[in-house]
Amino acid sequence: MSGAVAIIEEHETVDAFHRGAFYLVQPKGRGHRTGMDAMLLASMVTGNGAIRVADLGAGAGGAGLAVAARLHEARVSLFERSPDMAGFARKTLALAENARIAGRVALFEADVTLRGAARNAAGLVDDSFDHVIMNPPFNDALDRATPDPLKRDAHAIAGDLFEDWIRTAGAILKPSGTLSLIARPHSIADIIAACGKRFGGLEMTPVHARAGENAFRILVSAVKGSRARLQLRSPLVMHATSGHAFAADVDDLNNGRAAYSRM
Amino acid sequence: MSGAVAIIEEHETVDAFHRGAFYLVQPKGRGHRTGMDAMLLASMVTGNGAIRVADLGAGAGGAGLAVAARLHEARVSLFERSPDMAGFARKTLALAENARIAGRVALFEADVTLRGAARNAAGLVDDSFDHVIMNPPFNDALDRATPDPLKRDAHAIAGDLFEDWIRTAGAILKPSGTLSLIARPHSIADIIAACGKRFGGLEMTPVHARAGENAFRILVSAVKGSRARLQLRSPLVMHATSGHAFAADVDDLNNGRAAYSRM
Repeated sequence: MSGAVAIIEEHETVDAFHRGAFYLVQPKGRGHRTGMDAMLLASMVTGNGAIRVADLGAGAGGAGLAVAARLHEARVSLFERSPDMAGFARKTLALAENARIAGRVALFEADVTLRGAARNAAGLVDDSFDHVIMNPPFNDALDRATPDPLKRDAHAIAGDLFEDWIRTAGAILKPSGTLSLIARPHSIADIIAACGKRFGGLEMTPVHARAGENAFRILVSAVKGSRARLQLRSPLVMHATSGHAFAADVDDLNNGRAAYSRM
Repeated sequence: MSGAVAIIEEHETVDAFHRGAFYLVQPKGRGHRTGMDAMLLASMVTGNGAIRVADLGAGAGGAGLAVAARLHEARVSLFERSPDMAGFARKTLALAENARIAGRVALFEADVTLRGAARNAAGLVDDSFDHVIMNPPFNDALDRATPDPLKRDAHAIAGDLFEDWIRTAGAILKPSGTLSLIARPHSIADIIAACGKRFGGLEMTPVHARAGENAFRILVSAVKGSRARLQLRSPLVMHATSGHAFAADVDDLNNGRAAYSRM
């Protein structure tokens, strides 16, 4: 998943994902670096044909590109507020190695918490997407403050973060469109509250590093306008009891060989 | 766990629990019958010495008696609104087979949703319990209506059920006392909302019938006044891949040979 291919500037790396199906230009040693979280999030998108997918808070574009790499007709819009991170996404889309997918990926420098006309003007158009994905920044007041301003921006302090982001997801999804997100388990309350009456049919999947350990992430999907009840799915366990290798099912999700479909 | 020992009236059974450590008199073919849910709930109580435990909505007393049977000094108060179900609890406490534990168990016919002075007068005394357990009635508007009035009463229709019950738990627990409950996964939102600022340190454990299936219950514990974050624990899986026997760890919890402690 990592493994630098070429250093294009001294403070940047180019990393292979999906076993070389696409590459990301990323900041080196600062900012939020793409990894397993983005790949698991991307695995939650399913659908045939030219579905429209929005990646909110796309960063360097990892999750959005992973969707475009696996679903060969999907059209992906990346939304990123930070000009710095959007710059990495722009370089990523310009890489020759990504030519096969870049034509189906559009980048918008936009704050996903915008509302109303300003939101629509920024490319976050009402009722226009089939699937919205998000890996909202974390780190809150209980976490250790980080001296890295780029990382601090990505891992924002924000009590109403899920409300702001999920409100936008609810606005830009088509009726019965799907929201998928990855977050930390202690955000369950905020996520459910923000889904409120906008979304139903929540499916939550705990992600554990190893059997017997507490979950360190949750995958959540929800359907706009649904009234179906929350389901708590069987967990994903990343590693077998010993060793650092990924379990086969998780490795497939991480490398774009399988999708994590709704029930 | 089941296995009738003696039919004391034609519409009643006497069932062994904890491999014969105690017995319950229960309605036959109507009302809510005690089973795995109550035993898992009881397994969540830990503590040494004469701790005070309240069982809210105790029914025939299954969970409360299971606590008293495993913790040999614990003092348990059963609260049950239905005179009919309280009658079964009363017969249970009068059984010769329960003489070893009945002296540490008190029965209160009381509505756990009472407030203020009326609540205190009913035995639900402010700041007086170390541990509160509850297996709130379920069945809501989406479930099939049941023609059995006794069962309907136990499985009440009530949107604010968790708010009402958890408010009482917050009132009657000592500072830093523990609430434990068992519920269905789709109640997660209501439970978290009701815990609100009253409780923190939530620990949620999904309970699955088999690996790969959605959870059908959640165990939740929380600490009065805590500000600690929610944790999502490793799941309990009741059955191995094939067969109807319980997995060893679940069997131990079900039979009072082990406690399910907080982290």
